[in-house]
Amino acid sequence: MWNCPYSTDMFPKFAEDFNDIDSAPSFLMLSEVASSLGVTIIGGSIPEKDAGQLYNTCAVFGPKGELKAKHRKIHLFDMGKPLPGEVQFKESDSISAGDKPTVVDTDFGCIGIGICHDIRFPELAMSYSARGAHLICYPGAFNMSTGAALWELEQRTRAVDNQLYVASCSPSRDSASSYIIWGHSTLVGPMGEIIATTGHEEAVLVADIDYAAIQLARESFPLKSQRRDDIYQFVDLLG
Amino acid sequence: MWNCPYSTDMFPKFAEDFNDIDSAPSFLMLSEVASSLGVTIIGGSIPEKDAGQLYNTCAVFGPKGELKAKHRKIHLFDMGKPLPGEVQFKESDSISAGDKPTVVDTDFGCIGIGICHDIRFPELAMSYSARGAHLICYPGAFNMSTGAALWELEQRTRAVDNQLYVASCSPSRDSASSYIIWGHSTLVGPMGEIIATTGHEEAVLVADIDYAAIQLARESFPLKSQRRDDIYQFVDLLG
Repeated sequence: MWNCPYSTDMFPKFAEDFNDIDSAPSFLMLSEVASSLGVTIIGGSIPEKDAGQLYNTCAVFGPKGELKAKHRKIHLFDMGKPLPGEVQFKESDSISAGDKPTVVDTDFGCIGIGICHDIRFPELAMSYSARGAHLICYPGAFNMSTGAALWELEQRTRAVDNQLYVASCSPSRDSASSYIIWGHSTLVGPMGEIIATTGHEEAVLVADIDYAAIQLARESFPLKSQRRDDIYQFVDLLG
Repeated sequence: MWNCPYSTDMFPKFAEDFNDIDSAPSFLMLSEVASSLGVTIIGGSIPEKDAGQLYNTCAVFGPKGELKAKHRKIHLFDMGKPLPGEVQFKESDSISAGDKPTVVDTDFGCIGIGICHDIRFPELAMSYSARGAHLICYPGAFNMSTGAALWELEQRTRAVDNQLYVASCSPSRDSASSYIIWGHSTLVGPMGEIIATTGHEEAVLVADIDYAAIQLARESFPLKSQRRDDIYQFVDLLG
């Protein structure tokens, strides 16, 4: 989340209500920037409040500033017993889980949205691929241990397994924070290649996405048609 | 495959018949070594012939030399249109696909078996995890392009997504071959960490596997219980 410290006690304080966007400064700013620049914005995630619940939510605004979609994090980051050196975290102490996958048609292709821990579940990416996504965007804030071990790996994996693009954005690192963020926003292509990546400090990353690479990868390795639906099946209950 | 060149026209020539093990020198050798050393051997893969069909098969022998299981490659390596610089390959020109996942209980835990291209399908690894596998072994011979891009990534991914160990073995590289093999046999732990790996030349790798690390990873990140079976389900039709 980019408008508040990543700390369960801070989420209620910084949460914004979509139903009253004029008093939701982060959402409003995203809408205004999308409109003034005429661009599509996948706005990272912030705490959202709605009907007495809090969610970890990513809003997508179109080039007229219109709200095109919002994704509420489906898989909350609830750690069990921390590994040595890890900090405990239990998102569900204050956040409620979303209940549906989010794909949004934009001028730049069909985009699936996942937030942070959502990336660890191959099923969500599979459902986005089956729904026609060209790109999955994962705003996320892995910490120092999961970040070093898994952040890049998870992105490359989802891209390769589903033969599509994956883009992530992360807050930058504040070493004085209680939850120290790994950073490293990244763009990955459908063969798992890292097209662009940042370090852990504030940065702007500009990169081109060529959707023809999806077609090439799928023509070269037709994984979808090679699946064995006589042996296993993936069922998207909401698809 | 380790007893013949990886070339579709060579598979019939080097294929062995399990039903006549005395005239199946590769299988017999594996059985005899397992017996004489009192060890379990997951014997890589060789072409197998049975009832007029050829399979790409991995045999597992127990410490008395007994055949404990054999896995017939489920997902054949049929490339579509090769990417630039890649060599065309169509395994189904001579090989028939296996029709079931293989898990085998050994003195060293429950082991799932996949062969080469099988590793590209997350569903197979998911089925092994659901069936209680501690370790998935993938004999494989990725080539120079897929090897560099994907071999290590696929192993780490399957390990992390399923929170178990993955071990691979590959033939070593012969640069004069029509199909040049990447090599790099590897052992990966349940957090995606590379515990041991080889280069592309012949090598013996000795490493310890500590299954307690599976428990630790699953206690720390209880991915299995965090799945959202109200949104998606994985169905193992043969499980």
